[in-house]
Amino acid sequence: MKVGVIGLGYWGPNLLRNFLSTDGVDRVSAADLNAQRLKVAAKKLPAANYTSHYAELLKSPEIDAVAIATPVSTHFKLAKEALENGKHVLLEKPMTASVAEAEDLISLADRKQLTLMVDHTFIYTGAVRKIQDLISSGELGDVHYFDSVRVNLGLFQHDVNVIWDLATHDLAIMDYLVAARPVSVAAFGVAHYNHVEDVAYVIVNFNNGTIAHFHVNWIAPVKIRQILIGGSKKMVVYDDLEPSEKVKIYDKGVNIKSKEGIYEALIQYRTGDMYSPKLDGTEALSQLTSHFVECIRDSKTPITDGKSGLNVVRILEAAQQSITHNGELITID
Amino acid sequence: MKVGVIGLGYWGPNLLRNFLSTDGVDRVSAADLNAQRLKVAAKKLPAANYTSHYAELLKSPEIDAVAIATPVSTHFKLAKEALENGKHVLLEKPMTASVAEAEDLISLADRKQLTLMVDHTFIYTGAVRKIQDLISSGELGDVHYFDSVRVNLGLFQHDVNVIWDLATHDLAIMDYLVAARPVSVAAFGVAHYNHVEDVAYVIVNFNNGTIAHFHVNWIAPVKIRQILIGGSKKMVVYDDLEPSEKVKIYDKGVNIKSKEGIYEALIQYRTGDMYSPKLDGTEALSQLTSHFVECIRDSKTPITDGKSGLNVVRILEAAQQSITHNGELITID
Amino acid sequence: MKVGVIGLGYWGPNLLRNFLSTDGVDRVSAADLNAQRLKVAAKKLPAANYTSHYAELLKSPEIDAVAIATPVSTHFKLAKEALENGKHVLLEKPMTASVAEAEDLISLADRKQLTLMVDHTFIYTGAVRKIQDLISSGELGDVHYFDSVRVNLGLFQHDVNVIWDLATHDLAIMDYLVAARPVSVAAFGVAHYNHVEDVAYVIVNFNNGTIAHFHVNWIAPVKIRQILIGGSKKMVVYDDLEPSEKVKIYDKGVNIKSKEGIYEALIQYRTGDMYSPKLDGTEALSQLTSHFVECIRDSKTPITDGKSGLNVVRILEAAQQSITHNGELITID
Amino acid sequence: MKVGVIGLGYWGPNLLRNFLSTDGVDRVSAADLNAQRLKVAAKKLPAANYTSHYAELLKSPEIDAVAIATPVSTHFKLAKEALENGKHVLLEKPMTASVAEAEDLISLADRKQLTLMVDHTFIYTGAVRKIQDLISSGELGDVHYFDSVRVNLGLFQHDVNVIWDLATHDLAIMDYLVAARPVSVAAFGVAHYNHVEDVAYVIVNFNNGTIAHFHVNWIAPVKIRQILIGGSKKMVVYDDLEPSEKVKIYDKGVNIKSKEGIYEALIQYRTGDMYSPKLDGTEALSQLTSHFVECIRDSKTPITDGKSGLNVVRILEAAQQSITHNGELITID
Repeated sequence: MKVGVIGLGYWGPNLLRNFLSTDGVDRVSAADLNAQRLKVAAKKLPAANYTSHYAELLKSPEIDAVAIATPVSTHFKLAKEALENGKHVLLEKPMTASVAEAEDLISLADRKQLTLMVDHTFIYTGAVRKIQDLISSGELGDVHYFDSVRVNLGLFQHDVNVIWDLATHDLAIMDYLVAARPVSVAAFGVAHYNHVEDVAYVIVNFNNGTIAHFHVNWIAPVKIRQILIGGSKKMVVYDDLEPSEKVKIYDKGVNIKSKEGIYEALIQYRTGDMYSPKLDGTEALSQLTSHFVECIRDSKTPITDGKSGLNVVRILEAAQQSITHNGELITID
Repeated sequence: MKVGVIGLGYWGPNLLRNFLSTDGVDRVSAADLNAQRLKVAAKKLPAANYTSHYAELLKSPEIDAVAIATPVSTHFKLAKEALENGKHVLLEKPMTASVAEAEDLISLADRKQLTLMVDHTFIYTGAVRKIQDLISSGELGDVHYFDSVRVNLGLFQHDVNVIWDLATHDLAIMDYLVAARPVSVAAFGVAHYNHVEDVAYVIVNFNNGTIAHFHVNWIAPVKIRQILIGGSKKMVVYDDLEPSEKVKIYDKGVNIKSKEGIYEALIQYRTGDMYSPKLDGTEALSQLTSHFVECIRDSKTPITDGKSGLNVVRILEAAQQSITHNGELITID
Repeated sequence: MKVGVIGLGYWGPNLLRNFLSTDGVDRVSAADLNAQRLKVAAKKLPAANYTSHYAELLKSPEIDAVAIATPVSTHFKLAKEALENGKHVLLEKPMTASVAEAEDLISLADRKQLTLMVDHTFIYTGAVRKIQDLISSGELGDVHYFDSVRVNLGLFQHDVNVIWDLATHDLAIMDYLVAARPVSVAAFGVAHYNHVEDVAYVIVNFNNGTIAHFHVNWIAPVKIRQILIGGSKKMVVYDDLEPSEKVKIYDKGVNIKSKEGIYEALIQYRTGDMYSPKLDGTEALSQLTSHFVECIRDSKTPITDGKSGLNVVRILEAAQQSITHNGELITID
Repeated sequence: MKVGVIGLGYWGPNLLRNFLSTDGVDRVSAADLNAQRLKVAAKKLPAANYTSHYAELLKSPEIDAVAIATPVSTHFKLAKEALENGKHVLLEKPMTASVAEAEDLISLADRKQLTLMVDHTFIYTGAVRKIQDLISSGELGDVHYFDSVRVNLGLFQHDVNVIWDLATHDLAIMDYLVAARPVSVAAFGVAHYNHVEDVAYVIVNFNNGTIAHFHVNWIAPVKIRQILIGGSKKMVVYDDLEPSEKVKIYDKGVNIKSKEGIYEALIQYRTGDMYSPKLDGTEALSQLTSHFVECIRDSKTPITDGKSGLNVVRILEAAQQSITHNGELITID
């Protein structure tokens, strides 16, 4: 299989490096409009081919699949052309700039019977996979809430706000972990330095009463990457900055006894052991590129397929709309 | 001065203990309807007088001032009676169950020329006083955001939800620290175990663009007490669980250069030293009871007067209304 | 049973408070030479009887047992008199100022068939009891090392150095947890401000190769209370300052394969889950006073009997001797 | 200038990478006996020349300086040959396997007027440089103690024990920071899995009463990299695992008032602010390679010259001797 990587900005070189060492990938080509970036990449990763004409990668019959790591505003156009030329596509997150674009790509890929995958990298970490195991095995019970904080100083983006930049990660994790269906979104944010929000909060309500919340911030004094998940049986703290104990599972909860004939229920707390499972330490992106190649080869549906990309974009779009309308609750179909 | 404490539940005994050692207080009486509570208190604090008839304290010409630490639904009735009988009043937080009640008490105290104070304890901690110094001296610059997280497992209240219980603390701190005027409130919450919300998020928008946010949760696996304050010059992390370095001030920020004739502004990050100031370690409640006595004696306006109590109740009421209306943005006059 | 507490300095009032609520204790009397201390205690704990004549407690036929919480230099004299008068004795740590004194008290108590117990409070914490369970059940395997750090700023003692003050706690824990027999001790320390060492390090070697180490320091910028225990199967971190996860058990270790005919062994690391067990949160001192009363009543040997007190004093004495001789290794019989 | 790097094991490739981007270095060659290592390095760093014959680098008139990153037992032989061939030498830490070897190299370099430098990398970190500033400016006052903990699980070395492996880093830092002269060393250690110690403690006494202590451990459940430095005016905590606040300076101390005619001195604690200075984040090794090149060019004495290397080896040798003699205090000339 021959893979082309388009875009060598912040993330593209990581995709390139991983494709270069993915089993089943024979040759990797990379394109960027910027000569300097090509030069730097060529020095670090001399095994790839380089070009400043990305169109070559989209058209060349030599290329089986392309990974697109360009600004989000260009995703749709590039992915569409790639699919039309019969190439499998891996899209950098967020998948597209709108729900409509995402839906178009999904149906195009469907029609062409091509693999369309989104680079929701965190889904391929040992931490998130482990939490998914806990939820799907029923160990956590029902998910009561999903609360995420992703804050630090910088890096400002010029074209998208802090929600599109940072919350995308956590929305992808939420989409993977929470089985219920999101029904409405509200978002609040302020732009202090530029025309895009640098501090924001997003609420997602689910059909079963689960609530999710996202705090994203580019102007925070400290770096925080923390997700709390409250289950009816156990609770999880996922701190991505912890070097070795990223996931902690607390055997804590609330027992409730309805007292017949009495108005108030009797609430009791339950506190047991905490444990922090050993996690698979393989680089997430290397799992992801292998999975992409495997899905193409075996015609399997990727874990982070177009549908997951769409789910995330749908909430981003609703959040954007809510911010524009002063936090109005936006219903999701 | 002679002080009466009404209500010996969770907080009342702390007020009692502090009044017993406050300069200028000659005698302290305490009332509770519950005989067991009176017995326990009398054993621990034998220096006070005890009664099961709180009305005695409200009426007795021997009593100059009362501290009311009963459930919030009774605050208005008791405080009103006390003021009408010419007694100065210290009210446990939140001040009242509604804005109307708080306004009534304020004008009554005004008319009677009596001191009306609210027990916003945190305002009297060394940590919050120090942050106030930093803000009022201009060291932080303009406050861009105020973000608070107060979560833990328990203790459920039966009569009020998690916002009235936990966010009250942080709203009082916000009211004290943020000089701007709140203009609107939105809140979201879910009740998983009872008829009151146990997880909630509150947004407060200010007239100058400052945004405040509150995450409160009774069913969290870990205890977090953290406030982030982003200033235009410096930023603060206030972690109340840190044993010795509760307040950290970060010399971090964003410099922006407008480039004439060019669309995008140039954003640069600034990172300097962090420092953690030594804090006054005196018990906050002892500062508060002394301040109450001093305000009565010198006819001074308390730092946490009826007005601050009202400010907090106004946001609580708006938050309640917003939750009832699915997160609708509630305007504050 | 009637109990007398002698000495109301730092620790005595805690013993007093606990004996007042211990089942089986009918009356508690307390003595101190200092009138101010008596006054303060009488105000806080009015249920006890107070006297400035400690001899009364040692002699009175009304008293069944005494708890001695005076400076260590007086322990022997007071305990001896109490035992001779037929009273059971609880001695504050360290048990005595010398091995000879400890041995004397043990044989006297033996002869008189009286209970002699030492207040090694930490042995009665949920944390240390849990670690003991792990060791005695074989879950940790053989103990390879026991490493303790107990440092902070202050409080200087005038009569004893930092080893007698702080390391006593950790030596008692070690004595309880490590089954092997200590064979030699070395100690190093420096006195920066006074005639007693304020920074010190103690090494204890055991008959089976286990090594124990103690870092104690009165002039440290931060407070640390951390014990690492390396077992052949699992390892423990016990951090007494952690509010809720004081004990963490790591499924980590080293697997070694001897390669026949090859000089070097093959070493492999094993890393699994970590867990933090729920601990019994009962106040240790309350467990201890109950245990004391129970041992007297049922003629049982206390967990922290005279022998454990002696074990600790033996190492303290050897450490002192080592410091005097520039760290010379002192053999323990 | 042309530089040769000998040894491409764990550390050599880092030296190689940094020399490749050091100003003033025209060409870098590298040698290793292992073909696989050469292959891996050549793939990652194609800009260097590679050979399996290290002797070429030691002899070639084309090479001006060599960096030796081979096992410590070979340092002396290789460095000697390099110096004899007129090449400047950078030696990996520890400098040599014995004091005698280090002294030989120093006098040889002296005679040949060649630069002899030791790769004590930590000395070139922003953290250690900042602490040095604090000490040399007098801000900390006199250094009372230097306490270091460097523990983790693995990596066992086969040829040297945990002191030679891990304590070398901290001894180099101590040598750089503590101005006083070490006068004696004691060390204790146990070998649990192999013929070399995997847990060890080292004490260093100084001529002015300063005490230094080192805890090194290959079989610890957690990773700790912490140095406490107690000064008479301020105290430092240097935690190398902290992502952004590695150095914290505490305005804490002890004030002592001699009370005339009274036996005991009056001790008071002083506690003020803490601050964490911004540190230079440049990669230490890049600073080091630049410094090496600069010292050669300008005939300057390196910060970490042969003498500092010798100082460290002298303590390592004494520690080894002490361990062999059961912790005997070894005097240093």
